[in-house]
Amino acid sequence: MERKKAAEGLSRKIYLELDAPSEEDSASCQERILKALQAEGIEARLSVKVMRMLYPLCEKADWRVTVSLAYDGTGWQAVMIEAGDTSKEHYGLAVDLGSTTVVMQLVDCNTGEVLAMESVYNHQIAFGEDILTRIFYSKDQPEHLEEIRRATVDTFCEVMDRLTAASGIDTGKCISMVAAGNTTMIHFLIGMDAFCVFSAPYAVRADRPGFCSGADLGIPVLGYVFCYPAKANYLGGDIISGMVAVGIHKKETISLFFDVGTNGELVIGNRDFLLCGAGAAGPALEGGVVKTGMRAADGAVEGVRLVDGQFELDVIGEKDPVGICGSGIVDLLSELFLHGWVDLRGILQPEKSEKIALHRESEGEEEEYAVCYGPGLWFYQSDINEFLRTKAAAATMMEYIMSEAGIGQEDVSDFYMAGAFGTHVQKEAAVNIGMYPDVDRERIHTAGNSSLDGARMLLLDRGILKELDEILELMSYVQFGAVEDFLHKMVAASALPHTDLGRYPSVAAKLERMRRGGK
Amino acid sequence: MERKKAAEGLSRKIYLELDAPSEEDSASCQERILKALQAEGIEARLSVKVMRMLYPLCEKADWRVTVSLAYDGTGWQAVMIEAGDTSKEHYGLAVDLGSTTVVMQLVDCNTGEVLAMESVYNHQIAFGEDILTRIFYSKDQPEHLEEIRRATVDTFCEVMDRLTAASGIDTGKCISMVAAGNTTMIHFLIGMDAFCVFSAPYAVRADRPGFCSGADLGIPVLGYVFCYPAKANYLGGDIISGMVAVGIHKKETISLFFDVGTNGELVIGNRDFLLCGAGAAGPALEGGVVKTGMRAADGAVEGVRLVDGQFELDVIGEKDPVGICGSGIVDLLSELFLHGWVDLRGILQPEKSEKIALHRESEGEEEEYAVCYGPGLWFYQSDINEFLRTKAAAATMMEYIMSEAGIGQEDVSDFYMAGAFGTHVQKEAAVNIGMYPDVDRERIHTAGNSSLDGARMLLLDRGILKELDEILELMSYVQFGAVEDFLHKMVAASALPHTDLGRYPSVAAKLERMRRGGK
Repeated sequence: MERKKAAEGLSRKIYLELDAPSEEDSASCQERILKALQAEGIEARLSVKVMRMLYPLCEKADWRVTVSLAYDGTGWQAVMIEAGDTSKEHYGLAVDLGSTTVVMQLVDCNTGEVLAMESVYNHQIAFGEDILTRIFYSKDQPEHLEEIRRATVDTFCEVMDRLTAASGIDTGKCISMVAAGNTTMIHFLIGMDAFCVFSAPYAVRADRPGFCSGADLGIPVLGYVFCYPAKANYLGGDIISGMVAVGIHKKETISLFFDVGTNGELVIGNRDFLLCGAGAAGPALEGGVVKTGMRAADGAVEGVRLVDGQFELDVIGEKDPVGICGSGIVDLLSELFLHGWVDLRGILQPEKSEKIALHRESEGEEEEYAVCYGPGLWFYQSDINEFLRTKAAAATMMEYIMSEAGIGQEDVSDFYMAGAFGTHVQKEAAVNIGMYPDVDRERIHTAGNSSLDGARMLLLDRGILKELDEILELMSYVQFGAVEDFLHKMVAASALPHTDLGRYPSVAAKLERMRRGGK
Repeated sequence: MERKKAAEGLSRKIYLELDAPSEEDSASCQERILKALQAEGIEARLSVKVMRMLYPLCEKADWRVTVSLAYDGTGWQAVMIEAGDTSKEHYGLAVDLGSTTVVMQLVDCNTGEVLAMESVYNHQIAFGEDILTRIFYSKDQPEHLEEIRRATVDTFCEVMDRLTAASGIDTGKCISMVAAGNTTMIHFLIGMDAFCVFSAPYAVRADRPGFCSGADLGIPVLGYVFCYPAKANYLGGDIISGMVAVGIHKKETISLFFDVGTNGELVIGNRDFLLCGAGAAGPALEGGVVKTGMRAADGAVEGVRLVDGQFELDVIGEKDPVGICGSGIVDLLSELFLHGWVDLRGILQPEKSEKIALHRESEGEEEEYAVCYGPGLWFYQSDINEFLRTKAAAATMMEYIMSEAGIGQEDVSDFYMAGAFGTHVQKEAAVNIGMYPDVDRERIHTAGNSSLDGARMLLLDRGILKELDEILELMSYVQFGAVEDFLHKMVAASALPHTDLGRYPSVAAKLERMRRGGK
């Protein structure tokens, strides 16, 4: 397995025991290396940097050297040469390039093991919290675009430094990097204007940047940075990478992959067809809009249980609660609904608890009903309304893509819920509020940071490059925005769990039990 | 022909009329370009630089753009994009990288026409007039090696600037460059220590550098610099390039290619076999050692006739003569010999002319016999002796390689005399002194700067890359230094024209005529 991994990825390290030149054999140092690599079945060329290093390195190393090879999409380039056998020190980097956070893994490319993982906030945030602000900041302003590009590269360098510190391994020795990010993020990484991503007719600059030399991008790896290709403006490399990670495109059975955050992207299909779409879900899932909402950070309520009229909270970092994140909101809403503290429209029922009262977050705002879910922490009717629009968008996207594919939810064997929200939300609660479909819970999978996983998988298996061609060829893209009855469907999905309760039999049964006095 | 040339070289410029993005067609700009190129039968990838240029260039150009493509040995990379149709402006550079002079041609890659040609002294001369001094200067001194590398690159940049000035065409727009140079020169261009070239066991660092990105080398072309491969330490890319230029390797008949200067390199063969060798000829042919010798520059005597006991001189630049260059020396020696002013051993015969007298070049030197060939210009007995060693080495190399190949001079259809010396020397005079073999003069060809020609041919025809593989495979290298009877042969060849006058029937006939009183 180790041998296989070491040979199949985007990079290789090969230890060579070369013959020293002699009267009888005056072949060049270059030829010695290339012939030795050919003996291993590898056709390669030497970079200028490596040619400059041949002397005195080879002589000093007594002609025992290790060559680092980087795959560039068509062949191998020797990008480093070291004295002795360093083939065990074979590293690469996998990156999830998010607009908020850049997560990176340092990978042992011989074993596939993740040696360290670090994440930092994307330095682009200095130019705007949200993507659109950054896009407008850089639109038709080459200097601003360059600022954003540098911020992206600086972010990469910072995570690499942290990985070096955490692992004791110099990440500058990494040969290859695979980055997965949405279309805007990849545009910024390369230094391309991204206004096209959000502006009709949504024809982006480059959707398949492929292998870019680290030097060209300013990223200190020895070889190339491969950027996952995008299918469309709103369906970026992060989603393609996530699909690869869960392997939808290889299965006979049908899967649905859903990455939901401020935007939702989904793919339904199997090895024979792939239908994909994307749409805005709203910022509520990432703690935006909601008044006491926050990102999933220390002090965020991420779990809520309503027991005997009292809230029991799970707080990240075991601190005092200071706000609520997406998974907490889903839990809270599920509990409010099951206990009848909100009705099926999501309207707070003040008579159910004294925790529901008229309140305002700050002076000057209008009073409205709100539920006090923690010390000084209120969740308002307007928050609920906002969140219901978000969950309705998410549910409708899934419903719509299934109907476009002519497939009912019973035909979907597996639902993969990706992204930070999908990772942390309680499946049961998400079904209760009608955000996830009411299917056997074993069919709903947490895909985690599948974008990062797909990046790492490709780093370790260049065979996936061919799969990518097939995937992109197979995929059809549906523009949700262009769909007429999308809004109608969304209205029906704004109810808890849905205006058609028959679609949620397990929730109906639960409600029935609750009404009979159960919990 | 024009169309063919434009499509077969190391670079291409393709004008594309792309559809603008629309609601119905939101393909990326990258995809539009790549698909349009595929329609022309070209699989390409875009450089990071080009991806960054796509916007706003394509929109501003109304989607009429011209893409510059550089071949990298395996595929095409788009290295520039311009608005409108600039396909007529398709330029490349061919370089003869000599240790003394760097000669460069600016080539119209659509027509094959040479638009300008310039040469400058190699800036490496600052680190030593001769190659060995430069090699010792940089040996195990990375900073010195870097100085020499930069001097080489600076030389390239200076010639490029001159070409720009001469042609009005910005050479920075050139896509590809092909450089031919000896092994040391290519090592220095890339930045590799070159001590290996002159030191046993003569295993060089890299003999097939291939395509190096201009950026990696510091040379301002858009794409790649291809360096002609070397066969061996003393048989460099300049010779391979010269062979390609004269086409030895394609003919059924046998040719001998000879590039003689301070060193001599030769190849004998045809499409079925190629035998090559190299050896030192001495500096005399380039005006070295000889007391009033000089390079072929303004004021150098390049032609000599002895008419009625008086010298008639051809002087470069039609100036007053200040010294004598290689071709002048051959002429002078030929005239001295035919008129009996020297005997067959090259000994001056003072009784033949009052122009032959005891003389010394400067105070403190010993007096010796010398002939006064111009005002204040003397050619000494020691100069003659030195030159005879050189001509003997040259003649013996040809003799030896023919005998190694088992071939007599009658079997060699064509003799190609390359390099500055071969270009300027009078064939007849060179035969008279026994430097060239006594064959039909039509079989002796001036190959000119064949190294430069071969570079230009490859720039315009990437099919030659495949020929190079075949040539290098076919070639056998003979080390003259290792040959026992080489010195014996050389002694016989030191006579005028040779101890065995039977080998030079036309010279014998001429001597006979002279003796009878003819001219």
